[in-house]
Amino acid sequence: MVASGREVRLVRHADGALEPDHFAIVEAPIRDPADGEVLVRNRWTSVDPGLRLRMRETGPAGYFEGFALDAPLDGILTVGEVLESRADGFRPGDTVWHAAGWREYATVRAGVPALNGLGTLAVLDTAVAPPPAYLGALGGMGLTAYAGLVHAAELTEGDVVWVSAAAGAVGSLAVQLARALGCRVVASVGSAEKVEHVLRDLRADAAFSHRDRPLAESLRAAAPDGIDVYFDNVGGEHLEAALNALRPGGRVALCGAIADYDRARPASGPSNLFQATANGLTLRGFRGSAYVDELPAVQRRIANWIDEGSVRPFETVRDGLESAPEALIDLLAGRTVGKTLVRIDATESGA
Amino acid sequence: MVASGREVRLVRHADGALEPDHFAIVEAPIRDPADGEVLVRNRWTSVDPGLRLRMRETGPAGYFEGFALDAPLDGILTVGEVLESRADGFRPGDTVWHAAGWREYATVRAGVPALNGLGTLAVLDTAVAPPPAYLGALGGMGLTAYAGLVHAAELTEGDVVWVSAAAGAVGSLAVQLARALGCRVVASVGSAEKVEHVLRDLRADAAFSHRDRPLAESLRAAAPDGIDVYFDNVGGEHLEAALNALRPGGRVALCGAIADYDRARPASGPSNLFQATANGLTLRGFRGSAYVDELPAVQRRIANWIDEGSVRPFETVRDGLESAPEALIDLLAGRTVGKTLVRIDATESGA
Repeated sequence: MVASGREVRLVRHADGALEPDHFAIVEAPIRDPADGEVLVRNRWTSVDPGLRLRMRETGPAGYFEGFALDAPLDGILTVGEVLESRADGFRPGDTVWHAAGWREYATVRAGVPALNGLGTLAVLDTAVAPPPAYLGALGGMGLTAYAGLVHAAELTEGDVVWVSAAAGAVGSLAVQLARALGCRVVASVGSAEKVEHVLRDLRADAAFSHRDRPLAESLRAAAPDGIDVYFDNVGGEHLEAALNALRPGGRVALCGAIADYDRARPASGPSNLFQATANGLTLRGFRGSAYVDELPAVQRRIANWIDEGSVRPFETVRDGLESAPEALIDLLAGRTVGKTLVRIDATESGA
Repeated sequence: MVASGREVRLVRHADGALEPDHFAIVEAPIRDPADGEVLVRNRWTSVDPGLRLRMRETGPAGYFEGFALDAPLDGILTVGEVLESRADGFRPGDTVWHAAGWREYATVRAGVPALNGLGTLAVLDTAVAPPPAYLGALGGMGLTAYAGLVHAAELTEGDVVWVSAAAGAVGSLAVQLARALGCRVVASVGSAEKVEHVLRDLRADAAFSHRDRPLAESLRAAAPDGIDVYFDNVGGEHLEAALNALRPGGRVALCGAIADYDRARPASGPSNLFQATANGLTLRGFRGSAYVDELPAVQRRIANWIDEGSVRPFETVRDGLESAPEALIDLLAGRTVGKTLVRIDATESGA
């Protein structure tokens, strides 16, 4: 039904800074669906910081598998529309998500778990939210922000919560969910514009740019009595500052370390981990996908907050599949806000 | 009743390596007990790695207060014998513990909490164990090893547990308690002699010296399928190796970082904290004294294991109050085994 489509491929590993020439856009044949498969025309595809880790020669042990070179990038969330179905439960016209993103068309087998279950082919309810929301607030981003706050950080009403990279996909949801859960939220970002955004649009209680002055000073000004929870999207010096500011019994949700992803070597870790011993602090690493069983409940809860107006999803949308690599580079450099997405307008040439 | 006694004082702060001349032994007058106080002749006093942190110009925030210069060192556990009592519940001849150690005599007020309650004046039951045991297995060391395993690391039967500094006061108990709780224990130490000790006397399942070859190699040989729990007494590279070896859902009990205590600056932290995110690891800092309410129950449990022969306390005993500074220096250099204690034979001159 579709002869060929474009896809993004990684053509060499990136162990230093990611560049456009690490990628190629390739026109590849599209396989007709066999029994149990569907053919999907992808409409939106996700651009996530964590993808960067999978473009290294050797990624972190235990994380999602690295991308193969010169092959479709498997394991990236995407929303699209079923063109042809030979699988039960899927009909042409259905809006679905799956994990074969960064390409125009995908032939996907139903029932095959992907991304710890988060990317398994499934029909989306577009009455609840528009399709791209499932790549953000109602998808892995919402689940990650929620699980980080509620499970990893064991959030309690009244906690003072610091969220770093607070204008990012997960950060902007973490700020808003923490507020919705009754906490005071300090948000840190990388520019004056973003400070304005997180105060005005995300309604953070306090905000600062980490580029303005030493983190410890900014944090002291924003939370003079210390913090109870740190939602870490950055690692490095941010984590070090948090360890000094956390009150006894404080918790850190280790969500990611975007400061390190685009470097050949990670920055050294915090030199003050003894603060955890001194003050009984807990640091818990987590991935949203570990909580995939809770996704339906979390989606309902976040959808309610969106309806009430207490959570507003924000997106940076880039147009055209070919913009995906640049979108990731921009994201890593802090040039995007909210969930970064690519809107794919498939060329009709191959159809 | 006692005119004067000797005490150890800190005469200058130690921000690099600790030396004997950071201390002075001073003969000081002993105050007669007032109402609510007892006079104690100290018999055994504790030598702990954590004391080192309190000898810095600026110690870790939230930890026990630093020692004042040219004054008695307040807040060091000691066992002694009541000479004179003007406090209810204490009689001459009682064996007690309190927190005014590193001196021959102490006038102590009853009911005043010290060391988070762990050092509050209390009568000890010498029928259960000999007095010095209360500075080790039946005191803060036992409580720290137990709380670290059971609470901080949420130990489960069958876990593979790595204990570093395993020949030390807390480490040697952690090894034995983890075994008593049904775990497989890998012990690391700093010499071939200690390897022999932890295998033979503490019955660790596997052991290595961190000086022999890279930690990652030793750990892989001792626990080829990875570890579930790391009981961290060292910090630095040890913690980094643990993060790489921990299986999904693994836990770290952050007990201390002896590698750093005697340095002007702490070593940089682990550069691989992302492993916590990738594998859902939890790092929890803790201090035994935070669990002081559980001490009676933990003492009973450990006393039972000692009776059964499944836990054997080991001690390094130095004689004479004047040996306390050297004992601490030796402990920090890894030249002691088990709980380091000083046996005080008070000079009778002042009595």
